[in-house]
Amino acid sequence: MALNSFMKLFMPKDKVFYSLFEECADNVEKMAKLLSQVVNEPDFDKRQQVTAQMEDLEHANDELTHRIFTELGRNFITPFDREDIHYLASSLDDIADYIYASAKKINFYRVNPNDTGFHKLAEIIGQSACEVRKAVGELRDMKNMRLITESLVKVNSLENQADDIYDMSIERLFATESDAKEVIKKREIYQVMETATDKCEDAANVIESIIVKYA
Amino acid sequence: MALNSFMKLFMPKDKVFYSLFEECADNVEKMAKLLSQVVNEPDFDKRQQVTAQMEDLEHANDELTHRIFTELGRNFITPFDREDIHYLASSLDDIADYIYASAKKINFYRVNPNDTGFHKLAEIIGQSACEVRKAVGELRDMKNMRLITESLVKVNSLENQADDIYDMSIERLFATESDAKEVIKKREIYQVMETATDKCEDAANVIESIIVKYA
Amino acid sequence: MALNSFMKLFMPKDKVFYSLFEECADNVEKMAKLLSQVVNEPDFDKRQQVTAQMEDLEHANDELTHRIFTELGRNFITPFDREDIHYLASSLDDIADYIYASAKKINFYRVNPNDTGFHKLAEIIGQSACEVRKAVGELRDMKNMRLITESLVKVNSLENQADDIYDMSIERLFATESDAKEVIKKREIYQVMETATDKCEDAANVIESIIVKYA
Repeated sequence: MALNSFMKLFMPKDKVFYSLFEECADNVEKMAKLLSQVVNEPDFDKRQQVTAQMEDLEHANDELTHRIFTELGRNFITPFDREDIHYLASSLDDIADYIYASAKKINFYRVNPNDTGFHKLAEIIGQSACEVRKAVGELRDMKNMRLITESLVKVNSLENQADDIYDMSIERLFATESDAKEVIKKREIYQVMETATDKCEDAANVIESIIVKYA
Repeated sequence: MALNSFMKLFMPKDKVFYSLFEECADNVEKMAKLLSQVVNEPDFDKRQQVTAQMEDLEHANDELTHRIFTELGRNFITPFDREDIHYLASSLDDIADYIYASAKKINFYRVNPNDTGFHKLAEIIGQSACEVRKAVGELRDMKNMRLITESLVKVNSLENQADDIYDMSIERLFATESDAKEVIKKREIYQVMETATDKCEDAANVIESIIVKYA
Repeated sequence: MALNSFMKLFMPKDKVFYSLFEECADNVEKMAKLLSQVVNEPDFDKRQQVTAQMEDLEHANDELTHRIFTELGRNFITPFDREDIHYLASSLDDIADYIYASAKKINFYRVNPNDTGFHKLAEIIGQSACEVRKAVGELRDMKNMRLITESLVKVNSLENQADDIYDMSIERLFATESDAKEVIKKREIYQVMETATDKCEDAANVIESIIVKYA
C-alpha cells in the first residue's frame, strides 16, 4: 500500500479518484466475504477473529473516504460531478459500516449465527458487494456500459430479494421465538444486514446518475 | 395516462416538472385515503386487497420519481432550483413509501387495526397528504401565495398533532399491552405512520423554500 | 436578547451568521448541562421542570436555525460556503433535538434515571457540547487554529467513548433486565443519547471542512 500511495503522487490529479474508489470497493467486497465466514463459523472465538479482520478493513476504508474528501477539497478538476464523488464515497463507506456492524452485533449479542435469515442475507450482501465492485471498476474508462448497467440492475434486484428475506425472517422470528429479548436482538441484526443491501443500492444509484451524465 | 404522457411531449420542457409533481401528489393523496380504509377494515383479506391497490400506486410513484430525476439530468432549464426539484421529488416519494409501509406492516404483523392510535394517525396522514397535494398544485402558477402558505402551516400543525398522538399511543401501549412482542410490532407501526407525517412536513418545507426564492 | 437582536441590524450582513451560530452553540451547551441535572435528579416533578427549561431552549434554537436559513436565502455574501452554513446549522439543531429528546423520553417512559449508562452518556454529551461551542466561537476570527483543532479531536474521541458506553450499557441491560418492555424503553434512551454525540461529531466534521477551505 505504501508503494501504491507513492505511485499516486505521479498520477494526473483527477485519476486519483478512480484508484481510491476501487480500493474502497475492493475492501467492501472483502468484508462481505468475511461476513459470510462469520455467519457460518460455529466457534465464538474464531468469529471474533474474523470480525477483527473486518474491523481493520473498515478502518482502512474510513481513511480512504477521508482521503477522497480531502482530494475533493483540493482538486478543481474532478472526473465527474463533485456531489456525485461525495455521494459515491459516502455510500461505499456506509456499505462497509453496515457489513462490519452486522458481524459485530452477532458477536456482541452472542446470538447463534446458525440462522437461515443470517445465511441468506450474508449471501445477498456478498453478491451485491461484488456487483458494486465491478461497476466501480468500470467507471475509469466507461467503455463497457452494458457491463455497468447489468451490475446495477443486479444490485437493485438483490436489494428486493433482501427485502423479502428480511420479511420472512421477521415473520418466522415473531412466530417461533418466545423470548422477546431474543426477538429484539435478532431483529436488529436482520435490519442492519438488510440496510447493507440498501446502501449497495444507493451506490448503484449514484453510479447510474454518473453514467447517465457522462455516457 | 397514456394520453397524458403523449401530451407531455408537446409541453415546454420546464413545464413537465409541474405535471410530474402533480401526478405524484395525487397518488400520495389516494394512498392516504386507502390507508384509512385499511385501518377501518375488519376483514384481513379485504385489507390485503386494499393494500395491493396501494402497492400499485407506490410503484407508479417510483416511476414518476425516476422520470423527474431523468428530466433533471436532461434539462438545462428548470422552473426552480435543481436541488429543490430533487428534494421535493424525494420527499413525495418518501411519503408514498411510508404510507404504503404502514398498511403493509399492519397486514404483515397481523395486528388488529382497530386501534385508536392507528385510526387517528391515518386521519392525520390523510389531511396532511391533502394539504401537500394542494400546495404542489399551486406551484405551477404561484398566483395564490396565501393558499400555499395556509396549506404549509396546516401540514406543520398536523405533524405536531401526529407527535402527540404517537406519544399517547406509545404510553397506552406500554401501560396496557403485556405481550412484549405485540409492543414491538405496534410501536413499529406507530413509528412508520408518524414518519409519514414527518415526510409531509419535509415536502412542505421544500415548497416553502421554493416560494421564498421565487415569490 | 432584544438588544442583541437590535444590534445585529447594524452588523455587516455576513457577520450575522457568526452571532447566530454562537447563540445556537451556547444554547446547546446549556441544554447539555440541564440534561446532566435531569439524570441526577431523583424527584420526577423536578425532572419535569428542568425538562421544561430544556424545551424552551430547544424552541429558541429552532427559531435561530430558521433565521440562519432565512439569512442564507437573502445574503449573496456569506462568510463561508453556503452548504457548510446549511449543514452546520442543521447539525447544531440536531444536537439540540437529541439532547432534549433524551430528557423527554426519560420522563415519558418514567424510567429511573439513576443508571450508570445515563450518567456517563450525559457526562460525555456535556463535554462534547462544550467543545463544539468552543470551536464555533473560534470561527469568527479563525486566529487560533490549534484551539479549534483540539476541540474537534476531542469531539471525535468523545463520540468513540460514547459508542463504548452505549455497548456496555446495552450488554448490561440485556443481561440484567428481565422485563422486555424495560429493555425496549432504556435501549431507546441509550440510542438517543448516543446519537446526540454523533450529531456533535457531525458539527465537528463540518467545522473541519470549513477551516480546511478557509485557513
